This record gives sequence, structure tokens and C-alpha cells, in this order.
Amino acid sequence: MKRGTLIDQIKKKKSFLCVGLDVDLDKIPPHLLQEKNPLLAFNKEIIAATKDVCVAYKPNIAFYEAYGEMGWEALEATIDLIPDEIFTIADAKRGDIGNTAERYAEAFFKKMNFDAITLNPYMGKDCVAPFLAYEDKWAIVLGLTSNKGSEDFQMMEDENGEALFERVIRISSGWGNPSNTMFVVGATQSEHIERIRKISPKHFYLVPGVGAQGGDLNEVCRYGKNDDIGLLVNSTRGIIYQSKGKDFAEKARSAAIALQQEMADHI
Amino acid sequence: MKRGTLIDQIKKKKSFLCVGLDVDLDKIPPHLLQEKNPLLAFNKEIIAATKDVCVAYKPNIAFYEAYGEMGWEALEATIDLIPDEIFTIADAKRGDIGNTAERYAEAFFKKMNFDAITLNPYMGKDCVAPFLAYEDKWAIVLGLTSNKGSEDFQMMEDENGEALFERVIRISSGWGNPSNTMFVVGATQSEHIERIRKISPKHFYLVPGVGAQGGDLNEVCRYGKNDDIGLLVNSTRGIIYQSKGKDFAEKARSAAIALQQEMADHI
Repeated sequence: MKRGTLIDQIKKKKSFLCVGLDVDLDKIPPHLLQEKNPLLAFNKEIIAATKDVCVAYKPNIAFYEAYGEMGWEALEATIDLIPDEIFTIADAKRGDIGNTAERYAEAFFKKMNFDAITLNPYMGKDCVAPFLAYEDKWAIVLGLTSNKGSEDFQMMEDENGEALFERVIRISSGWGNPSNTMFVVGATQSEHIERIRKISPKHFYLVPGVGAQGGDLNEVCRYGKNDDIGLLVNSTRGIIYQSKGKDFAEKARSAAIALQQEMADHI
Repeated sequence: MKRGTLIDQIKKKKSFLCVGLDVDLDKIPPHLLQEKNPLLAFNKEIIAATKDVCVAYKPNIAFYEAYGEMGWEALEATIDLIPDEIFTIADAKRGDIGNTAERYAEAFFKKMNFDAITLNPYMGKDCVAPFLAYEDKWAIVLGLTSNKGSEDFQMMEDENGEALFERVIRISSGWGNPSNTMFVVGATQSEHIERIRKISPKHFYLVPGVGAQGGDLNEVCRYGKNDDIGLLVNSTRGIIYQSKGKDFAEKARSAAIALQQEMADHI
């Protein structure tokens, strides 16, 4: 997807909501377990109920992988179900070199038609560059994550006081451009979002951690928004697992609308 | 696998060779393409030809993933083919938090019966701990990799001169112990292997980069070996892609034996 298309969608829908699709047989409504592929049946209803209020979907690849062939079948079919104008993110957090990265790019960008993939920067440029070779596809590089372990290494500072997460964003923003690169910036660390915005004024951020993990949407917008909005805020549990009954899709829709309406005030 | 079993195997076979199984339809002998699952047919012959001279196999998960269901089928069947006394490493370089990490652990340790998985430390302890909860399974944490991009971030130093790769090894060695944690230490950077051995005297290292990537086995042994050998040296292209003819398994065996004999001198 082109950057312009994404921005148009955000303005049109007055939403920068990304819905996480972390399918889990223990959490989906039990009546779906009788379906041929319960994971796909769940996603199908969630997508139908939320596609007019969100601008992106983000399946977490680990969940699909854990179900083997049934999982991959559900993932491939899910991507085909999502309308073209909605941005799709393979939350895979891959990070591997040259020919391996090329294989991953092939799997997620060609075999499945994802718009973007999340990438881990630890091994450097070789792990990101192969994804930037695809036109209208995006690399979303982990910058500052929202988990507790983000303090273990991402906060390490060099002698000039630059933290690893700042270095990652500064250096990797030079590998591509704001039309093919985004960064993961956790919502739980809003004091750092302002610093990150100075390093990468034009880039989009994929922001996890709003809601269940404690991040605040107003804080994220205050420090993270740019002229093109520049944010995709993800919510997973707060939307897709609101009910285990037959009304699960309806409840997901209500939760998505509630969050979208908060977002509309910031657009 | 228990640490003691791995060490026994190394001493018995006079080998610390790990064979990389990076299957690629463009590189395997063309006559195998008629097989029902060419990837599996290839692995089957490679394993039969090398299992008495190596102590570990390392399938690179990206390659299997790229082939979708055929790839996963080949991967699962490959693991079942490998004798129990040979250490199996899922080279997945995963790095994700809590429930996602648990899913990956389930996929690689329970659904498939791998002994170990490679993990990316960027997101910290949350990404490694769930794998350490499995008895007799191993987390292999990326320390210093052998690719060019390793310089981008792994070499970053704090005000005391400690590099990120040293910090990763120092801190993450405290999350588990030398019986459930290894580190990836690239062979191309032998000047650093000595520094790493000081930080983690008892741990095993998975060493890529010998051969095709320019690493030298003697250098690796000189700086990296410990009392229990403490090394698994991986070779992929140098073994499995020596021929595209019907003699490919035979050629793989010869290459594996040549490397094993070099290793025998160090045991």
C-alpha cells in the first residue's frame, strides 16, 4: 500500500485503529469450535464487524504457527478476506540475514499479500534491506517496545547518552524512507515518544500497548502525532475478546467504535 | 536433551558439527523435484548420509515457512527422522513477549520435538524466559552474529566500554544456566570470542560462519573451546549443497567427514 492511500483511509474513516488478530482456541467463543477451521471462522466475523472502523489488521504470526497447517490455512485465507484498502501487518518480528530475509519477504509479501511486516533490528541492516526492495510494502522496525524486558537492552546508553532504541530509529530510518518504513513505539512509554518523534518526524509508528497494557491514547497523540497523523494504534484483547458468546462480533464492533470515536477527536 | 548427553555425543563421535538444513528448491538436485515432498526427500538423504558424523541439525525455519504447508509438513517429518541422540535446533530467531513466546515454545518444543530454538534478545527477558520453563530444552540467544549488520547495533558501547553483545551475554546468562542456555557467537569475529568466553565460561556456543562466510575453525577452537568443548560449529552450504547430481548425499557425507576430522584434533 502507498503512504498516500493509508493517510486517505485514516482521514476518511477518522480512525487510526489497527485491530490485532491473535487467534486462540482457548479464547474464541466455544460455538465456533465446531467449524471446519474455527480460527478462520472467528476472523471472518471479526473482520466483517470491524472493517469499516479500522484502517489496519495485524495478525500475530506466532498464534497461527502454533496451530500448524490449520493455522497457516487460516492466516492465508484471512489475508484474502481483508479488503484491499485496509493495511495488513504480519506481526512476525523477524530478524535474519540476506537469503533468509528474502525467504521471509517472499512468504509474507508474495505468497501472502501482506502490506507490512514487523522486524527485529538486532542483526542490523542486512535483516531489513531485503524487505525494502518490494514496492509499496513496508518494514516496521522494533524501536521501543511496550514490555517489561524493553529495559534490559533497549535502554542501554552510549557515552553520549543516546539509548539503543534511539540509535535503532536514527540509523534504520536511513535505510529506507517514510514511505516504506515504520517503527514500533510502545504506548506505555509516552515520555520517550516525544524523543523518538524528534528523530523521525515523518515516519508512521505502530503503537501497541494502549488499553490492556496501560498506554493512554491521549498521551500517545500528544507526543506522537505528526501532520499526517503518523500513528497506527493497535488494540487486540480490548476488541476481539470482549465476549465468548454468539454476540462476540457485535461486542468487538462496539469496542472498536468506542476507540475509533476517541481517535476521531485527534484527527 | 540434557547437557551431559550432548557432551557424551561430542566425545563419542569426536565431532561438534551441526549441519544446517536450509532447504531450497532452487538448490536441491533436480531429480528430487518429482518426489511428493522434495524438501523432505532431500533432508531424508542428507540425514542418512551425515547422522553418524554430526551431533546436531539446524533447520532454518524461514526456508520451510516460505513453502507454506509443504514446508511445514517437511519440517515436522524431518524432525521425526532425526535420531533422538542428535541435538535439534529450530533456527527461528524468534523474539516476542509472554503469551506469544509461549505459543512459539509450544510450536517448537511440544508440537515439534526440537531440543533448542534460537532467540533474539532485543525485547529482553520476557522473550527468553518462557522457553527456559521447559525441562531439557534450550534457548540459544543471539549474542554476536556473523553478518555485516552485526556492526550496526551489537557493537554499540556504553560509557564503560561494554558492547551490546557483551551486555546481552552477561545479562541473559543470568536468566537460565549453562544447561539450558547457549549463545550464537559468529566465527567471523574470533577477536571477540575470547572476550565472550570470559563472560560465559561454561556455556555452549552455536557458531555459524565457518567456511563459506570466512570463519576459521582453529581460531574458533583456540578462543572459544572450554573443558566440555562448549562449541557446536554449524556448516550449511559447505555440506548440503556440494552437488546437484544423484551423488549429492555422498558428497555431503564427504564434506561432513572432512570437517569432523578437523574437529577430532580439537577434542
